[in-house]
Parts: sequence; structure tokens; C-alpha cells
Amino acid sequence: MSRVKEFDVDEACDAALTLFRRQGFEATSVSDLVTHLGVAKASLYATFGTKHDFYLTALKRYAERADARVLAELSQPGSGVAAVRRLFDGYVEEILGDETRMGCFVVNAAIELLPRDPEVARLVERSWDTLEVALTMALQRARTQGELPEGSDPAALARFLLTVLQGLRVLGKGTDAASRVHAAVSQALRLLIRE
Amino acid sequence: MSRVKEFDVDEACDAALTLFRRQGFEATSVSDLVTHLGVAKASLYATFGTKHDFYLTALKRYAERADARVLAELSQPGSGVAAVRRLFDGYVEEILGDETRMGCFVVNAAIELLPRDPEVARLVERSWDTLEVALTMALQRARTQGELPEGSDPAALARFLLTVLQGLRVLGKGTDAASRVHAAVSQALRLLIRE
Repeated sequence: MSRVKEFDVDEACDAALTLFRRQGFEATSVSDLVTHLGVAKASLYATFGTKHDFYLTALKRYAERADARVLAELSQPGSGVAAVRRLFDGYVEEILGDETRMGCFVVNAAIELLPRDPEVARLVERSWDTLEVALTMALQRARTQGELPEGSDPAALARFLLTVLQGLRVLGKGTDAASRVHAAVSQALRLLIRE
Repeated sequence: MSRVKEFDVDEACDAALTLFRRQGFEATSVSDLVTHLGVAKASLYATFGTKHDFYLTALKRYAERADARVLAELSQPGSGVAAVRRLFDGYVEEILGDETRMGCFVVNAAIELLPRDPEVARLVERSWDTLEVALTMALQRARTQGELPEGSDPAALARFLLTVLQGLRVLGKGTDAASRVHAAVSQALRLLIRE
């Protein structure tokens, strides 16, 4: 019989995700993880490897879920502009509803660990690339459907909207972010409106 | 005679600023500071207080310099839109020219330490408030000069541009940020152009 206690790997992973997302990589110690997850150190190492391995697993999990949500939203049939607008509404709701102001795990990881951590960099860049491609596709569809102003460049607009999203995540860390977040989104989306 | 070695306080402060800006608060140990600054631990404590005190001093120094640059740029006489454009050109140059990709110290501090550190939060919010007020003033001047499109709202545009700037700082941490940064700025500034 094994002496290692059993635990729910998925639950432990989600709990670590929250901890790393809120505190960052450096500020989260292995004993924080042990306390917070209620899993013995030896079991954590045996299952997830080093703290860095565990961090990568948690970040990958977060990014894959976030990316899946974006792809699902932006590939909805119908108006491309409406899909982009729904995506932004979802972000605004998430940012302003996040009472603990944990922020976006991908942004937090980028700021804390880029450029010095190449494995984190790969996950961050992949997530940004996914968002940019998905936005470009939705905006190309919008252009084909005649929704965008004359001369709009879907790829440039996608890069612009990706930038606005990262900015919203940063300002969401502040108090009283609501007026900035709402103004930023409504101004940004004006570029998608055909007068 | 004092046994404490003399050192240049300004130089030490700038060196600490660079270290904290690049590595963050948690990842910078007191012994990193001792090694990097070449100043004994006892002297550092005597002059700057705890690591947290020293971090606050460095962040305040960075924010005051950055804010002064913004105010100087945006209060130049002449076209308000041209002043905003010059400000953004300056940021783009700084972000793409930062080969070590240290990022903006204010953004790094916000992501790492907000909301849990109220003293850092005050410095961050003050810097964002300053930038927002300065942008609002420049855009109000632009509106008075008839430069902005009909119906433009200087306060909303200022919040939007503040958000774009924070997003540029985040994406600047990635490799190959140039195409995103250039596209984001040129799209964002389209909202200031009277057709």
C-alpha cells in the first residue's frame, strides 16, 4: 500500500492557479502551496515537479481555458463586430467583477517573468497570438459583411484591440477602474463603427 | 570618525531603481542590492530604511521623472493633437528601444503589488491620475482649437489613451512587439483625426 495520501489533482491544480495568479511566482513559496492545497510537499513534487513546473502547468491551464472562451465567442455566426463587442463586454464584466483584483494570469506572468523565463514567454506569446488571430478573423468576417468603415485594416485593428485588452487588465488592478474601463472600451470600439 | 563608508545616494537610488524595475520587489533580495550597489547592508538600512522603504523611494523617483516628462510634453504650446502624438512617439521609441525589456516600473509595480500594498497603490494611482489629467487637458485644448472630430469627449479619450499606453507596456515585454505597438498607436490616434 502506498503511504502517499490521495488528493484531487484537478482541484489542487486550480487552487495553485489561483495562488500563483494572485501572488505571482516569486511571492508564492512551496510551503504556501502545501498550506493552501492541503497536500504534502512530497506529493506535490511527485505529481507536479518543481515550483516552476507547477507554475507552468497552472499558467497553461489558465491560458487554454481563456483561449477556448475567446475562440468560442469570436467564431459565433452572425455579425463579426457584434462578436467582438460581446468579447469586450465579457472582459469588462470579468475585470470589474474581480473583487480580489487578481488580474489576468497571462499579463501577470508576462510582467513578472518576461523576458528572463523562456518557457513562460512561450505560453504568454501563444496566448497573445491566439487572441490576435481570432480577432483578425472576426474582423475580416466583419469587413466581408460590410460592417467596418471604409479602408479598415482587420490585422491592424486586431493588434490595436489586443493592446487595449492588456491595458484594461493593468488598469483593473487599480481602485475605481470602472470609469476608465468603460471609456476605453467604448472609445476603442468606435473604430469598428461605420458612420 | 564614522566607520560607515560614504557613497553617492543618488547613484545608489538609480541603481536600486533599475534592479527593482527589472526584477520586481519580491525577486530582489537585500543581498542583491548590496552586491549591485556596492554599498554595505548597514549603510543601506541607515540611509534608505527597509527593502520596502527603498522600493517606495525608487518607484516615487521613477514616477516623478516620468510624470514630469509627460507634463512638459503635453503643455507645449501649439496643436494639442500634435503634442499627444509626440508623447506616443516617445513611448513607442522607449518601449521598442528597451532591449532588456524591463518595462514600465509603474505597470510592473501595479501588477506585482496591487491591491495588497496600499503605499505602492497610492504612487501608482497618482501616476495614472497625472497622465489622465494631462491628456484630458491637451485634448480639451485640441477641441477648443477645432482639431478633434465632432462630438469628441476629451475626458473619455484621455481614459482610452491611458489604457492603450498601459497595454503597450505589457506587449512591450514580448518578443517582436514592434508590429503590435505601431499598429496599436496608429489605430488609437485615428480617433483624434478630423476627417
